[in-house]
Amino acid sequence: MSEKLKELKQYIENMNRYHHVVTLLQWDMYTTVPKEGYDRHADAVAYFSTQQFQMSVDSKLGELLEVLNGEEYNSLEDDWKFIVKRMKRDFEKNQKIPAKLYEEYVRALSESQRAWEEAKNASDFNIFAPHLKKLIGLVEEVTGYTDPEKEIYDALLNQYEEGMDSATIDRIFEELKQELIPMIQKIIAVKQPANPKFQGDFDPDIQEKVQKLLLEYIGFRWSRGAVGRTEHPFTLNFTSKDVRVTNHYHKENAISAMFSAIHEGGHGIFEQNVKEEFDGTVAGSCGYMGIHESQSRFYENIMGRNRNFWVPIYEEIQKLLPGYENISLEEFYHEINRVENSLIRVEADELTYCQHIILRYEMEKAIFRDHLPVEELPALWNKKMQEYLQITPPNDAAGILQDMHWSGGSFGYFPSYLLGSIYDGMLLEQVEKELGDLDLILKEGRILEVTKWLNEKIHVYGSSRLPKDTIWEVCGKEVSAKPLIRYFKEKYSSLYGIEL
Amino acid sequence: MSEKLKELKQYIENMNRYHHVVTLLQWDMYTTVPKEGYDRHADAVAYFSTQQFQMSVDSKLGELLEVLNGEEYNSLEDDWKFIVKRMKRDFEKNQKIPAKLYEEYVRALSESQRAWEEAKNASDFNIFAPHLKKLIGLVEEVTGYTDPEKEIYDALLNQYEEGMDSATIDRIFEELKQELIPMIQKIIAVKQPANPKFQGDFDPDIQEKVQKLLLEYIGFRWSRGAVGRTEHPFTLNFTSKDVRVTNHYHKENAISAMFSAIHEGGHGIFEQNVKEEFDGTVAGSCGYMGIHESQSRFYENIMGRNRNFWVPIYEEIQKLLPGYENISLEEFYHEINRVENSLIRVEADELTYCQHIILRYEMEKAIFRDHLPVEELPALWNKKMQEYLQITPPNDAAGILQDMHWSGGSFGYFPSYLLGSIYDGMLLEQVEKELGDLDLILKEGRILEVTKWLNEKIHVYGSSRLPKDTIWEVCGKEVSAKPLIRYFKEKYSSLYGIEL
Repeated sequence: MSEKLKELKQYIENMNRYHHVVTLLQWDMYTTVPKEGYDRHADAVAYFSTQQFQMSVDSKLGELLEVLNGEEYNSLEDDWKFIVKRMKRDFEKNQKIPAKLYEEYVRALSESQRAWEEAKNASDFNIFAPHLKKLIGLVEEVTGYTDPEKEIYDALLNQYEEGMDSATIDRIFEELKQELIPMIQKIIAVKQPANPKFQGDFDPDIQEKVQKLLLEYIGFRWSRGAVGRTEHPFTLNFTSKDVRVTNHYHKENAISAMFSAIHEGGHGIFEQNVKEEFDGTVAGSCGYMGIHESQSRFYENIMGRNRNFWVPIYEEIQKLLPGYENISLEEFYHEINRVENSLIRVEADELTYCQHIILRYEMEKAIFRDHLPVEELPALWNKKMQEYLQITPPNDAAGILQDMHWSGGSFGYFPSYLLGSIYDGMLLEQVEKELGDLDLILKEGRILEVTKWLNEKIHVYGSSRLPKDTIWEVCGKEVSAKPLIRYFKEKYSSLYGIEL
Repeated sequence: MSEKLKELKQYIENMNRYHHVVTLLQWDMYTTVPKEGYDRHADAVAYFSTQQFQMSVDSKLGELLEVLNGEEYNSLEDDWKFIVKRMKRDFEKNQKIPAKLYEEYVRALSESQRAWEEAKNASDFNIFAPHLKKLIGLVEEVTGYTDPEKEIYDALLNQYEEGMDSATIDRIFEELKQELIPMIQKIIAVKQPANPKFQGDFDPDIQEKVQKLLLEYIGFRWSRGAVGRTEHPFTLNFTSKDVRVTNHYHKENAISAMFSAIHEGGHGIFEQNVKEEFDGTVAGSCGYMGIHESQSRFYENIMGRNRNFWVPIYEEIQKLLPGYENISLEEFYHEINRVENSLIRVEADELTYCQHIILRYEMEKAIFRDHLPVEELPALWNKKMQEYLQITPPNDAAGILQDMHWSGGSFGYFPSYLLGSIYDGMLLEQVEKELGDLDLILKEGRILEVTKWLNEKIHVYGSSRLPKDTIWEVCGKEVSAKPLIRYFKEKYSSLYGIEL
């Protein structure tokens, strides 16, 4: 190994320690820290992120990357060719951000996350509004430095799914929307009364036992995984060897947390299976959110909302959840696929979910393209809810405050969910081509065969392959919504006995 | 405020951030990190502790402390007089430790803690022995630098209870031992068969609910507190505003975790009530372990093993723990005070517990005074167990490997537990003098009055007052084992209806 490469590896290791403690501080802020301890954590996050950021723009690093991308480039192994090229690009971007601005941004993030929690609890957008406004301004300012040549919302989209722009997304989403609107109307016309059997009083401790059962079932590994409880479920990872998923337990209904468990488990399985050699480098930990969501949603929807997913484990779940002994698998299957126009994205069925995303995508375009004042956002949200889902949120908590994304500075993330589902349609076709009928695989309790396939085809690559290339390599096709639409039609026409 | 004091405060704040993340890493290592994630945590602990240590010996700090302890000293407020004096002493000590040695020590600690867990699980002292040997050597080396004038074991004792030496401890422990030996013999002669009703299958989740109930009852505050699960219960604090207690749940018996909850809760309440202005300084967070243990053990034993402690809450506990509906408070009271010669310190009744400590105290003297080879320690342990408790451990896990202290480099800590109990005898006398009969206070559900008294008399001072001074200020007497002996005699003669 060349001296310069050795130096770079040492440099990365050092920088990673700062990233490591920032990640841990964030984990703890969401899962454990008591109210009065929050400030010191936030202060430490700001401090150590800034230290890390300073290291990421240090001229010493720049010099190493210069040499490794220049005279030494051809002597590098392929993985490291990717790594040094990607690092050089990031270095050049980061260098453009003034240190003071970065520090301000990090601090604003901490504050706005807390403000969002408070606002949501009080169901009062006004508590969150000034923080959101500040954050939007800072994101615009930062992006102006890093991507001066790009239209700002395209730059944001690109951060979460490299190679994606709003023109492409417009086209795919449109294709889907045209099919979805009549499909949902037909399905909703079929009477699907809510089944009161699913309402109960479910101890969070018992729900956590169900979560653990589900995680194990789908292939989440405890030797490199842990769980926590939080307001809004998320997955976080240090490296492939330490991946953590969280959940939020609703006392009155156990289904929501089951599907969060499977969803976050999908993210977690992805991260646990990225090639170990990538740990701590820009090639490790998948940074493409569309691909990431395709995995969480493949587990959650394509498999989790399939009747056969539950066949091998439903009896165990009945033993854990009080009242479930009186609920047949058939009733359960219908409940988890009941299509209805509802308020909360994360509780939505897989069809109306798409509308929730399209709404958010349009909201973000309104923010960053039309510069709609923050104060007017709740009204726009409610108007669009009425338009797309024929329902108006009774309050902000059930409306614009329901998601944590914006409070964390994640603008441009939402489309990833729908891109994920679109990829999933394609992956389903490919899985069945290579492994056989998914219904049968699930029914026979061979779900880990699918996990292994996903590990090998997708997870192991981490960030080392762009989303479009991944889809091309795995499916041999360009991205298209057609397979997803086909899946929807087949599933729901059979489920509801109607022509779609 | 003088410029120099401002600078010192800034310096402390900076240094505390490193302490903060090291504390969090340790918390996570004991409560959450998955097996494969451990190494990166350990690496980060070593790195950031070393950073912190380097700041603690930086000449810039030395200069500030020189000025503040010199020409500016008289202008300081009393609290800061204590702080700068104490910091100067610590600075001078730390400066004597070579940086490389310190780093090696920190790394060895991480490794030995993990080795201890493995060894305990495998019940094999040989796994732990090389780590213990290395740690003893390193502790001797470090102490040789910091306290060259002191006999090494006295130096270690002094680290945990400043002002204590083995001559004093020998005297007090002897006073107690002479009384205890016949007392325990008389009590053990009374037949006390184990009550099989207490064996069961207690879900850890339910035991955690009991823990939370108990913590709230004694005055632990959730706005500045959190709980976790671990192999061996401990309490850890960032500042008074973020104090965390852990527990370990034994499935077959719920009593052990209840008393761990109360014990750690006592430590936690102490830390939550140290004067906020001391947060982050050497005056905050009580560093005197005898005094600290006096608080945890006052809650655990003096109050927790008193029948009346349970009167206001026993019904609630009966509702939570399956089988307890058939156990009367009277039976419960007898069970938690059943005196027997047993293997495990943390499970021992409050009388034989004293023997467990005296054994460990003598083991430590054998290590540091007689330089007994590490390989011979298990045999000595077992010999002493037979001698003092007429019982021989069937394996290392139930013998020399049962405690985590040595694996964490805490040599000289064990005597603190017994000093704590000795202080407790004195505190009990004083509480009753000032607040009235403790039985009545507890029975009437007024335990928070005692907590408030302890807050005001002891907790608020943190580290700003030495143990001997604390006892003198609160009780107006020199330390003596007589009140504890009196308490033992009264309680157990009434409980067993015998003359003691």
